[in-house]
Amino acid sequence: MQAAKGYAVHNEKDSLKPWDFQRRDPGPHDVQIQILYCGVCHSDIHQVRGEWGNSMYPMVPGHEIVGRITAVGKSVTKFKTGDLAGIGCMVDSCRECNNCKNGQEQFCEKGETVMTYNGRERNGGALTFGGYSDIILCDEKYVVSVSDKLPLSGVAPLLCAGITTYSPLKRWKVGKGHKLAVLGLGGLGHMAVKFGVAFGAEVTVLSTSPSKENDARKLGAHKFCNTRNEEATKALAGYFDFIIDTVSAPHNYDMYLNMLTTNGVMICVGVPPEPIKLTGFLLLGNNRTITGSMIGGIPETQEMLDFCAVNNIVSDVEVIDISYVNEAYERVVKSDVKYRFVIDLQSLAR
Amino acid sequence: MQAAKGYAVHNEKDSLKPWDFQRRDPGPHDVQIQILYCGVCHSDIHQVRGEWGNSMYPMVPGHEIVGRITAVGKSVTKFKTGDLAGIGCMVDSCRECNNCKNGQEQFCEKGETVMTYNGRERNGGALTFGGYSDIILCDEKYVVSVSDKLPLSGVAPLLCAGITTYSPLKRWKVGKGHKLAVLGLGGLGHMAVKFGVAFGAEVTVLSTSPSKENDARKLGAHKFCNTRNEEATKALAGYFDFIIDTVSAPHNYDMYLNMLTTNGVMICVGVPPEPIKLTGFLLLGNNRTITGSMIGGIPETQEMLDFCAVNNIVSDVEVIDISYVNEAYERVVKSDVKYRFVIDLQSLAR
Repeated sequence: MQAAKGYAVHNEKDSLKPWDFQRRDPGPHDVQIQILYCGVCHSDIHQVRGEWGNSMYPMVPGHEIVGRITAVGKSVTKFKTGDLAGIGCMVDSCRECNNCKNGQEQFCEKGETVMTYNGRERNGGALTFGGYSDIILCDEKYVVSVSDKLPLSGVAPLLCAGITTYSPLKRWKVGKGHKLAVLGLGGLGHMAVKFGVAFGAEVTVLSTSPSKENDARKLGAHKFCNTRNEEATKALAGYFDFIIDTVSAPHNYDMYLNMLTTNGVMICVGVPPEPIKLTGFLLLGNNRTITGSMIGGIPETQEMLDFCAVNNIVSDVEVIDISYVNEAYERVVKSDVKYRFVIDLQSLAR
Repeated sequence: MQAAKGYAVHNEKDSLKPWDFQRRDPGPHDVQIQILYCGVCHSDIHQVRGEWGNSMYPMVPGHEIVGRITAVGKSVTKFKTGDLAGIGCMVDSCRECNNCKNGQEQFCEKGETVMTYNGRERNGGALTFGGYSDIILCDEKYVVSVSDKLPLSGVAPLLCAGITTYSPLKRWKVGKGHKLAVLGLGGLGHMAVKFGVAFGAEVTVLSTSPSKENDARKLGAHKFCNTRNEEATKALAGYFDFIIDTVSAPHNYDMYLNMLTTNGVMICVGVPPEPIKLTGFLLLGNNRTITGSMIGGIPETQEMLDFCAVNNIVSDVEVIDISYVNEAYERVVKSDVKYRFVIDLQSLAR
């Protein structure tokens, strides 16, 4: 075992505070990573605060991790010391079921997907601790290569916000000739705009905040619609081939279904905890589809990072010291960030 | 104008009674069909009784029409007198929009799809009258060819129940290696079983009536699950690649979503008037999809009929005299039919 430093909460009322803990020594298939940057995902806040009912404490959050490899186990073949590497939402799975074999480890059929934090290791069942820390160890199978061509702070959010939007846009073959709407312009939404534009689609941002129009256009969006403007919203009836819906607050699904053209698809990557309500005849009319998507597997995460390196895509971030993280949480809850807070882990030593 | 005979209702409380009315003389592009058989679709009952709020009276229902051509307009090229022909749910549309040009006339972008009955003609706006009658006229573009290889009474329901299930199974490429569930074993469900089997899928019927197991197997289904049996239902978690849901009564969508495997698709061809409720995380987990489908376009209806002629597929029907139609309606409402009533229109003359 070796000493590690991080920020943790010890119960659901706690705020994040410095915490010293233990990490394992590298096993034969492990890489050890000195964490350079870790993004702040809204799901960190839900879990820190026990809002999903599945929280285990102490909790060191963080699953948008980029760093440099400082040690490798003797059987490691993909990485060497000094390489840049990333870890996303998961650090292990059964490796034997069809989904694991097919690179959909997030849907391990044995239910053995091990989350990067707020999870338990498969062997021994120790709690996993995430990226708000100085080092992390992980089997190389669940580690991705990071290019040195991009600013690393902007790469960190690709490991969750990036793959979550990239994966369904690829699966549904969104591209040239398609009209894509991005619903909500936050951490996920701003990445969906960038990928939609990179894939060649006409991208429209749908938002309740007219103030976001300028930002949407700066990100590359071709059009903007204030969804509080009834007339503008009606004019979009039957317009979109795809809508990627990044909103986790309750919202009116029928209104957006109605904006889909024949065979159009609404892709949900954020959903409210309350049941989704939709009018069946809106699904039947125009043969519409509503689908969900959850992050993406390890091979596709690597593909996404490679695509980003070639196409110069990163997340727009506000880099913070870790001591600012509790204030950052308050601002995330108020959507007051463009578009992702990323913790500079070197601040742990300051 | 020429004299026609049929059965009609004159208001939502009315029962179907004999009615003499007028049909147009054949225009240059029209075919005139002597109707031999017309299926009784549950939607006939909803519209006769004004349950969808869009009923126009007098109403002659019927959109599963098979007959023989008795006259053709001078510009007709596809048909000649004596040919067998069919008419389904629509008899006209704008013919100019993308959907009309692409054979999705049911989704005419100008909203000019003319329903076979309870609709209005585009020019002049006369009410349309359906297949519970002796003759019908229709532009040849909206008429399909019927093979003489199959019993015509069993062909009639293919024009609605057939295409409604064939179209989405084809669009989603259901076939060999897929596990398909058919939810509900009525007019639509029994056709879905036949097509699923013909396409090479493993077909399971899901039903609340254990008494339907024998029937399901006779239709070709490989498996059966009584969905009131909690244990059997749980064992199907993550099992199906596709579920085709033919149920129009309110039901538990979450229970069925949970039966879908990774990237699985639930296809709704029947929906309740009440909003569909589903848990968002069930969509995200396993990247599940729920989609709707409404009948099918004219070219695909012809494709389906040709497929049925080659593969010897017809609907299982109970042929009735038209004087029995009001009793038949009562039995349809009680699901007391295997699986479609079909009116023998020669009984009009008796």
